[in-house]
Order: sequence, then structure tokens, then C-alpha cells
Amino acid sequence: MTAPGKRNLITDVPGIRVGQAEDSAVRSGVSVIVPDRPAIAAVCVAGGGPGTRETDLLTGGRLVQGVDAICLSGGSAFGLAAADGVASGLKAEGRGFALVPSEGVPPTPIVPAAILYDLANGGDKDWGEVSPYARLGLAAYRDAGEAFVLGRAGAGYGARAGAYAGGTGSASIVTKDGITVGALAGVNCFGSTFMPGTEAYWAWPYEIDREFGGIRPPEGFTVDPDDWGAAKANPALGQNTTIACIATDAALTQEEARRVAQMALSGFSRAIRPVFAPFDGDAVFVLSTGRVDIAESRPFMVSRLGELAASTLARAIARGVHEANHGGYGEV
Amino acid sequence: MTAPGKRNLITDVPGIRVGQAEDSAVRSGVSVIVPDRPAIAAVCVAGGGPGTRETDLLTGGRLVQGVDAICLSGGSAFGLAAADGVASGLKAEGRGFALVPSEGVPPTPIVPAAILYDLANGGDKDWGEVSPYARLGLAAYRDAGEAFVLGRAGAGYGARAGAYAGGTGSASIVTKDGITVGALAGVNCFGSTFMPGTEAYWAWPYEIDREFGGIRPPEGFTVDPDDWGAAKANPALGQNTTIACIATDAALTQEEARRVAQMALSGFSRAIRPVFAPFDGDAVFVLSTGRVDIAESRPFMVSRLGELAASTLARAIARGVHEANHGGYGEV
Repeated sequence: MTAPGKRNLITDVPGIRVGQAEDSAVRSGVSVIVPDRPAIAAVCVAGGGPGTRETDLLTGGRLVQGVDAICLSGGSAFGLAAADGVASGLKAEGRGFALVPSEGVPPTPIVPAAILYDLANGGDKDWGEVSPYARLGLAAYRDAGEAFVLGRAGAGYGARAGAYAGGTGSASIVTKDGITVGALAGVNCFGSTFMPGTEAYWAWPYEIDREFGGIRPPEGFTVDPDDWGAAKANPALGQNTTIACIATDAALTQEEARRVAQMALSGFSRAIRPVFAPFDGDAVFVLSTGRVDIAESRPFMVSRLGELAASTLARAIARGVHEANHGGYGEV
Repeated sequence: MTAPGKRNLITDVPGIRVGQAEDSAVRSGVSVIVPDRPAIAAVCVAGGGPGTRETDLLTGGRLVQGVDAICLSGGSAFGLAAADGVASGLKAEGRGFALVPSEGVPPTPIVPAAILYDLANGGDKDWGEVSPYARLGLAAYRDAGEAFVLGRAGAGYGARAGAYAGGTGSASIVTKDGITVGALAGVNCFGSTFMPGTEAYWAWPYEIDREFGGIRPPEGFTVDPDDWGAAKANPALGQNTTIACIATDAALTQEEARRVAQMALSGFSRAIRPVFAPFDGDAVFVLSTGRVDIAESRPFMVSRLGELAASTLARAIARGVHEANHGGYGEV
């Protein structure tokens, strides 16, 4: 039976840990996804206003294909500094890429990153010359483990999802043949995660075990195509963005991971409306730890993994909003 | 009130005509979308196995931004010849791009095109050295008008949508402020347009006036994340693909049209599951006839147009399948 993993978190993928850190005064935070060994990675950026780091490295045909961590952060462009802190944490452990390992030469940590915009959320952004994000990135890295908090935590700590509180969401799925796919999302979308005029999430068809409240759309639901429901009332350019990471233990090439990322974008489309707007910087990373060989027809398996990534991401997005608005704020 | 246009077809966009032609022996066809003047165009290609023509011209920073027609065809790579026939039709009318018009020098017709795979549908593909597609392209161009047939017609004539007959679909929407958005799709997807175990289309939340049967998902609907329902049983690489065109009278720049195309991809995601697989060559063009100025905040208007494009495309996809399987096969 296809079912969520033990924690229903991205950390159900063996070898994947997540660390988070927040600053309540700044009202922002960081989530770091850490594979225990360099993992194949790819990215797909679909929004009109992205903020990213080390994504050129993931476009194919490059020297390095394995990454040491993926960093998702609040703070808009300032939040890209969170990856500095993650790099510091990796350096202290001697982790990173080295073409020729040499005494006294630190390996280069590979930490692709993406940010969401939370500069206008009322937190204290008067941090002087040094932003808090490198510190938060290091703290998040050191916090990495299998358990982590959903809702108002990590990258989604200061987020807004349409007219509601945004947050960090996660979910996982384990197939009958033993492949695990997990997703983590910082949900700060311009669009709404709710079907207009209802309390049902757009992602409702994908929900498992009432993981985001079990609310179904009312009979006779219709929507005016120009009615966005609980989207942000006054969207501003670059003030939004959902950023996400998929992880799987299936052994993918980087090109296959990129195809999975493209398919995973459907998770945004099925959970958020409108999405990929000029206001959004939506992006999704895919990590493959490579522990489970996929011997069967590879394009067929990539299709499966891509669809599992899409549905797991849609669930993670809805969970992030649900936990931020109704959650116990406790450890999952 | 936001509502479909008079015909609920892409030709509700003023200045847009559609022509179609089919070959019943070959079991394939062509649809051509013809603006009455060169229209700003963009494209977004999301599938893993696309077949396209003149799409580099649409990537930005190029000399020519206006196109004379968009051609969607069956026939896999052979179907790209359909644009040859469209070019012939345009040439006969003296249409095309000319930097410096000169006597005896024909203008260059600009006809971006995309194909879907129908070579294995049982039709007679033994056409010798000359494929029927240039002929079909010319016939489709000459057929162009405001009325056209949905279902088993045009580019979708020989298509399969998952386990069901595929077809050509279309839909339109007119906003309160007088902007029209239309969509046309040749639906030949690997994935299913139906929610597994039901007769409800994935696109059901977007349906207007029972335009594809008014079927709602049953209460208590759930789906195994690894169950694709009525997807193709034995997908083969490059044997699928949904190709589509959005048209609007809103005056967009090419960059804005590209953002609308990216947003329109959500229409695929909300109507087809799985989608953007390695087996699919999914692509969507966007045409702007430029007749209606958008004076308001442009990014906001682009968001509206992108979401209208997404929902109208989702409806067009469901209508294509519905008409192919239940339609009257008559003129709409």
C-alpha cells in the first residue's frame, strides 16, 4: 500500500535530515535540507520573481552534480546569506567538493538556495550591516535531524499564504516497491491555497488521513475564473514566493531529477491559485540520495517519481498553511 | 459577469480564426490558429519529448516578435511539415515578415508549430516520400474561420487521451472589463484527464455551464498517489503530448506573453495527471492580438491573464476529451 512514511516528513527519505532556525524579532527563518552524502540535485524555477543561489550549477553539463545541502530562507535577497552559514557548518565538518583533496585546502560546500519575501511582515529588519541570515543558516544546519516543526517555523516562519498565515510544510510517501519521496515547502504564495468561498484546500484530492483537516469542497462548488478568493489583497512585486525541495532515495541522474522537478511544479499548480505569477519566485529543488536503484524502464519510473513528487508537494503546501493557521506549533 | 464568449471557442477573441483539416485514412489532422494581423507570441515547453518549429524565434531578444499563425499538428516530427502548407497559404496572400518590402521578394511567413504523436493509432502511414501534412496545413489555413469542430477534428483527430479517445478542445472567457481569453488544445496525453475510479474530470472545478458534462467527483474521493487511473497502459517515449494555444486581445509584450504561457501550464497540471512526463511533449503558445490596452498595474493584469489562461486551458482540455468521447461530432 502506498502510504506516508513514519513521520510524514521529508526526513522519511533515508539519509535526509532537516534543520531549522528562526528569529522571532526579525520574524523570519531558515530551513536546511541536508543529505548525509553529496546528493544529485536539480532545480526548476517557475515564478516571475525568483531569488536563488548556485542554480546555474544545476543546469546540466557542469563539473559538480552533487550538493551538500539545500537552503530555503526568508529575508528576500538578504536571505541568500543563509547559505553562507550552512557553508560554515559544512566546512567545520570538512564537507564539500574537492577535485583533488589537499592538506590545508578546504573543500567547497555546494549549497543551492532560494528565498521567499518576508521583509514587509512587521518584524524588525533594522539589523545594520550584518543580516541575521548567515547566523540562522548555521544554526539551522547544526539543528539538522529527523524531526522538525511545521507551520510557523523555518523558512516559512514569517510567511503569508494569500490572506492567511503561511508556513513550512512537509509530507512524504512510500511506494509498494520501497521508494520514498518527501517534500518540504516554505509557503508564501501570492495566490490562495483555498478554493474560493470555501475552507477546502485546492490540494484536497491528494490529502491522506486528514493530514490537513479533511475539508472537502461543498457540493455545487463553482468559481468565477477571475475570482482568486483568499489571495493577497494587494500583491506587490517580489513579495511572495513558494520555495520547495523534493527528496527521494531513488537513484536519478541529474537530467532525470530535472524532469522530476518539472513534473513537481504541478504540485504548486494543484495547491495554489493563481501561481507562477510575476509576483511569485516559485522554485523547486530535487535531491536524489541514490540509495535505491531503478532498474525498470527509467522514463516510466521518472514519470512515477515526478507524479509522486507533485502530489507530495501539493500535500506539503496545504500542510504548511494548515499547521500555520491551526497547528499545535509543537514538534511533529 | 465573467463568462464564456459567444461560441466558447478561442475564436471568441476578436481577430482570431481557426482552420482545421483531417485525413481519415491517415487518421491525423492539423489545426491552425490565424490572427488577422501579426500577433505577439511566446511559448512555454514543459514536456520531456517536445516536437516544435520556430520556437527559438520566440525566446526573446529576436528580430521578429509577431507571428502570422500557430500550427498544431498530429504526425509527430512529420507533422512539422504542416507549417510548410500554412506558409504557402500565407505567401499566396502576401502575408509574412519583411524588413524592407521589395517587389518580387516574398515576405517570410512566421509560423511556430508543435506536434503530437499519432503514428501508432492504426491509420495508414505509408505515404511515401511526401507526407500529407503540408497539404493538410494548407487546407487548414484555407478553412480558417470563426466556427470549428471540437473532439475528433484538427490536430486531435487521431489522438488518445490516456485510455480514452483524445481530441481537439477549446474554450473562452470574457472578463467584466472586456478582455477575452481563449484556448485551443490537441489532447493526446499520457496521463488521464479523469480522477481515478470516477467519471469526473480533474478540471471539474473550472467547468462552466456543464460544458464537459457536469460530472462531479463522488463524496469521499481519495486517490492512491501511485494510481494513475485511466492513463495510457503502455506509455512509450514520444507517443503522447498535449499541445495548446492561448489567445487574448489584451496587449501584451512578448515577455508578458511568456509569463502568461508559464502560468497557463497550470491548466495542464489541473486537467491531466500525471503530466509533463518524459513521454509528453507538452507545450503552450500564447498569442496577443494587442487590441485592448492594459493600463492598470501590468504585473497584476498579467497575473489575471495567466490565471484566466490556465483555467480556460484546463476547460479546453476537458472539452476536447469530452467531445471526442461523447460529442455530436458536429460543428460547434
